[in-house]
Amino acid sequence: MKRASSLIALIAMVAGQAYAAEGLWTFDKAPIDKIRAETGAVIDQAWLDHVRLSAVRLSSGCSASVVSGQGLVATNNHCVEGCESDLSARGTDYVKQGFSTAKREDERRCPGMDAEILTSISDITTQVNAATAGKTDRAYTLARDGALTTAEQAACGSDTAYRCEALAFFGGGQFKLHKYRKYSDVRLVFAPEQLIGFFGGDPDNFNFPRYDLDISFVRLYENGRPLATPEHLTWSRTAPRPGDAVFTAGNPGSSFRNMTMTQLADERDTLLRITNIQRAELRGRMIEFGKTSVEAKRVSDNRLFGVENSAKRDYGRQLALSDPAFMASRQAAETDLRDRVRADAALAARIGDPWGEIATAQRAYREHWLAYRELETAAGGGSDLFDFARLLVRGAREQAKPEADRLPAYAPTRIGAIQRDALDNFPVDPALDQMFLEFWLLKAREYLTVDSPAVKTILGSDSPETLSRRLISGTRLADPALRKRLWDGGLPAIEASTDPMIVFLRKMDELGVAEQKTWTSQVSGPIERAQARITQARFAVYGQSIYPDANFTLRLSYGKVEGWTYNGQTVPPTTNFAGLYQRATGQFPFALPAKWVAAKDKLNPNTVLNFSTSNDILGGNSGSPTVNARGEIVGLAFDGNILSLGGQYGFDPAVNRSVIVATVAITEALEKVYGQPRLAAELTGN
Amino acid sequence: MKRASSLIALIAMVAGQAYAAEGLWTFDKAPIDKIRAETGAVIDQAWLDHVRLSAVRLSSGCSASVVSGQGLVATNNHCVEGCESDLSARGTDYVKQGFSTAKREDERRCPGMDAEILTSISDITTQVNAATAGKTDRAYTLARDGALTTAEQAACGSDTAYRCEALAFFGGGQFKLHKYRKYSDVRLVFAPEQLIGFFGGDPDNFNFPRYDLDISFVRLYENGRPLATPEHLTWSRTAPRPGDAVFTAGNPGSSFRNMTMTQLADERDTLLRITNIQRAELRGRMIEFGKTSVEAKRVSDNRLFGVENSAKRDYGRQLALSDPAFMASRQAAETDLRDRVRADAALAARIGDPWGEIATAQRAYREHWLAYRELETAAGGGSDLFDFARLLVRGAREQAKPEADRLPAYAPTRIGAIQRDALDNFPVDPALDQMFLEFWLLKAREYLTVDSPAVKTILGSDSPETLSRRLISGTRLADPALRKRLWDGGLPAIEASTDPMIVFLRKMDELGVAEQKTWTSQVSGPIERAQARITQARFAVYGQSIYPDANFTLRLSYGKVEGWTYNGQTVPPTTNFAGLYQRATGQFPFALPAKWVAAKDKLNPNTVLNFSTSNDILGGNSGSPTVNARGEIVGLAFDGNILSLGGQYGFDPAVNRSVIVATVAITEALEKVYGQPRLAAELTGN
Repeated sequence: MKRASSLIALIAMVAGQAYAAEGLWTFDKAPIDKIRAETGAVIDQAWLDHVRLSAVRLSSGCSASVVSGQGLVATNNHCVEGCESDLSARGTDYVKQGFSTAKREDERRCPGMDAEILTSISDITTQVNAATAGKTDRAYTLARDGALTTAEQAACGSDTAYRCEALAFFGGGQFKLHKYRKYSDVRLVFAPEQLIGFFGGDPDNFNFPRYDLDISFVRLYENGRPLATPEHLTWSRTAPRPGDAVFTAGNPGSSFRNMTMTQLADERDTLLRITNIQRAELRGRMIEFGKTSVEAKRVSDNRLFGVENSAKRDYGRQLALSDPAFMASRQAAETDLRDRVRADAALAARIGDPWGEIATAQRAYREHWLAYRELETAAGGGSDLFDFARLLVRGAREQAKPEADRLPAYAPTRIGAIQRDALDNFPVDPALDQMFLEFWLLKAREYLTVDSPAVKTILGSDSPETLSRRLISGTRLADPALRKRLWDGGLPAIEASTDPMIVFLRKMDELGVAEQKTWTSQVSGPIERAQARITQARFAVYGQSIYPDANFTLRLSYGKVEGWTYNGQTVPPTTNFAGLYQRATGQFPFALPAKWVAAKDKLNPNTVLNFSTSNDILGGNSGSPTVNARGEIVGLAFDGNILSLGGQYGFDPAVNRSVIVATVAITEALEKVYGQPRLAAELTGN
Repeated sequence: MKRASSLIALIAMVAGQAYAAEGLWTFDKAPIDKIRAETGAVIDQAWLDHVRLSAVRLSSGCSASVVSGQGLVATNNHCVEGCESDLSARGTDYVKQGFSTAKREDERRCPGMDAEILTSISDITTQVNAATAGKTDRAYTLARDGALTTAEQAACGSDTAYRCEALAFFGGGQFKLHKYRKYSDVRLVFAPEQLIGFFGGDPDNFNFPRYDLDISFVRLYENGRPLATPEHLTWSRTAPRPGDAVFTAGNPGSSFRNMTMTQLADERDTLLRITNIQRAELRGRMIEFGKTSVEAKRVSDNRLFGVENSAKRDYGRQLALSDPAFMASRQAAETDLRDRVRADAALAARIGDPWGEIATAQRAYREHWLAYRELETAAGGGSDLFDFARLLVRGAREQAKPEADRLPAYAPTRIGAIQRDALDNFPVDPALDQMFLEFWLLKAREYLTVDSPAVKTILGSDSPETLSRRLISGTRLADPALRKRLWDGGLPAIEASTDPMIVFLRKMDELGVAEQKTWTSQVSGPIERAQARITQARFAVYGQSIYPDANFTLRLSYGKVEGWTYNGQTVPPTTNFAGLYQRATGQFPFALPAKWVAAKDKLNPNTVLNFSTSNDILGGNSGSPTVNARGEIVGLAFDGNILSLGGQYGFDPAVNRSVIVATVAITEALEKVYGQPRLAAELTGN
């Protein structure tokens, strides 16, 4: 659990440049020469285009790839658990039992799931900078958002087959427009039983060696028919060997590799300190909640997975930020850059003191973060019924305002996503939803205290328990038709509604909006503007060879199949079916599904099941195709080792490892365990 | 929630001396002149002896005081909740409904509760230092423990009416023998309903303004009759006024006010980081567990209180250690001492570099802490049945060893306490006990990982769920007669036992013993020896005017009735009955018991209910008599404000406040709410 303090890594970080396998490279700036020099692999623009056009981004927050000519998409099992849960019903638990289809007609649409393929990237930095020139504070934010919106509208117009997203890279140092072909009819084809799709469960999560068939397949449909996808990855029936170069193409969600030291300290001492405690308590409540009945377990298991996954992720982040050696490496990187800026008078004059400005903004961070969290970012605690009401109330109120006054997420180009979220149809379990709402109310009262005016507004003379019960039992917002009427009715319908959850949001939502505005003006806005100048400094000092932080856009990472050595212990890079059967104790989460017990003798014990690589991936990369230099898919990334979690803030090439499930194991399982020769044939082209 | 960074406090701390109300003074070194100079209050040795001989230490980890001539003892309600819970049964929940008696015969013995009165303090530093001279490592520890044991035996012999405790002060810079008159027949006399005894519940815990009748009464018995206690505190029917000097006499459990900066960093980054997360998850599980039935709530509520109280306490500690201003104040204090040592060559030569030695030991701390916690200090997770088995197995094994090889807690003079804990009779709820055991096993597996040899030894092919269910359902250790037979049978009985919990402990207890030995030799031993030299430095630099860290021995603190100002907001120091009724929303934990609702018009709205003072108290001080300069008891300390929690590491006189329940409110409640004129008369002598 202790972080390595590799001297090599330290030195690498000091220079502020990417070494070894580090890098979340955009597809328009892939370091082809560097890759060849470091790994021997030769890739070109055609290779990049092919991989990009085969890569898929899922609205479940995952990555995926097209792996047949008939729209078949491979991703992780945990990426479709939400879909499986939505398709399940009392007595039918697809998450647990898996989902399989005998014919195309059995494939079932995943409620709310979108799939997107990145068709183009354009640099719009010049336009945005022109629009924001000389502006600060709210004027800057409005001008920037206006320029981004304009770029999105210009590129996509009203064509609903596409989605355009203009967003900042390098913390605001660059702006780019991403155009995606969008598919909204995504159907579940195959997912294994949870016992094998998440073999080892939470204890093995973020650990390696690993034995996990974390895979699933969905299919893209258009006009009710499978999408023809001539552009797709070739499925490999061979595992890569140790030392082989491999690439991932996926959408890492976020990273903060250029945070200043004051930001890192607040990340550790404010944000993670409190979120880790709160999430742990929620985790405990969910585990006991799931014990109350089979049905309670079914409706809560997928949410529990999300909570536990985040809990371990943030445990790993806090671990890294609590490691003096890791913090020293970040300090060294910051010092190096600041020294180089100081040594260049012209540069220093141009850059000013963004580090000092961030330190000032971080004082506001420490003052406002808790209220911002409890009243805005964590408000509702994950209650779907609360979220529906907030989208409806805020949607109506914001749309009634002049465009320039609206919150960014409610701008005309973005309101479609809000509307879709507000009207989406999926089952809500009232008991679980009430627990989430109650938990949020309890934490808001605990952390802001009983005497806080905001808490008094929210609770009145209720307790968290009575209020959440009253709201959940009284609201009818689980009904999508009601939500449609309220959305279409706009502000008058919202004002007239007597639904208790709408009434509650009418009363309290302004508290959250106010916190968001304070946060934007005093914290995130100033930090973004200062970070943009730090980026300018990094470009000036280190050249164009740097990569931008993750922002859930498509990135290429390169690396090799390799294990690692830590505390004198060497971990080999591959596991196989034999190891799976050895690890299976018969007790959850180390119990195998009946089909796997039965198929033991049919499987080749030496088939590679999982392997580790030095690719630089992060949350959001789940399901990323792992391809070899020939562009064949050899595996799906589904995890990182525990030492990879500090990767949020800095990459350590000595020990940061991705964890991949091999295509060779997938095909063999489909054929020998699941009796799915049709699906295997579609993959392998036989 | 944000810590004040009072410049005054900072400056005060820099000098490394006690300022204003700071200080956990021992009764043999009370700063009489300083108290007079700062508060105007005149106390003398007779006053100190009287207060000391009226002060009581309870084995529930609380403080208390004798308040009548018939052995009546006043303490907090939360100090007897364990007793109430033990006396309760299905259908009778004394924690919830309170406990009252119409006559002496109704008073009921609290299982396992001891009460102790400190009769003498002797300095044994010279003897201990003579025994340890020139020794290091294990030899030092053995010699020291031997000397302490010898001192205890010399003072107490085999007289079971007394208990002698020889222990370190100033982190090993001094050793003192405390002799206590011990009372093992402690009976519950009166406790209010939990709704008023813990009004405001967890949300108001560690907050002020406060409205809480956190009181209870027990009585000391000897030979089946109430103990005659001519030495007792006079009960005041008047509340002290703002500015009045007040004193507390109680037993603060532990403090770490002389931790070095490396120790504080590990406290924050290792210990609190992990314990806070684990405890939060347990909290969540217990809350949901308590929802499953009325009975489940009854058996778990008192344990939940303990968990929540510790959770908020450690939240406050982590908050202080995450505050740059607070850490700067500790750094300033360390720098001041080290600079002064450096400036005195002879002193520097004598002291050496204890700070460097501690930094070295802290590296071992970071390496071993997690295993030490999971396998030893937190092993069993609070399962009583596990604890019984561990005491029995370890008791038998340690007693079979030569004296010099035994663990310190199993030395001949201490084995009585072990035996008593092993054989004590109280009800165990199997479902709750199983949850605690399961939770510990889950966390051991999660934090040490599935591949840890220790985890493999513990779990075998079981899961935490199956193992804990099997052990709890199979063990018969809830039966005290069985435990007596096993204890009396010694090692042969333990080796022959087929009780699954005994079998389990036989298998795994050695893992914990080994971790304890590693910890003592590599971490706590070296730190203790280095801290002893830091103490010598502090004596040399600051003179004898310093006080030792808390160690659950009797301490005097002085202060004044006063509020505080924080972030521009001034909090007045008193609350009254009128405020209580205003705060009562009718919803838990702000609902009043029926008797209080009924008595509203009989109570004087202006009667002081709670007040805050600048006394320096800590956990363990709960129930401390708060006395005025005349030695009259005016209240019982029951809490501190949220800003007092950093007091574990350093006292901030500007904002650190104790929270006290006034005797005037107690008497009025006994008379007007509870119809207990007999008890009120016993208190007031009428």
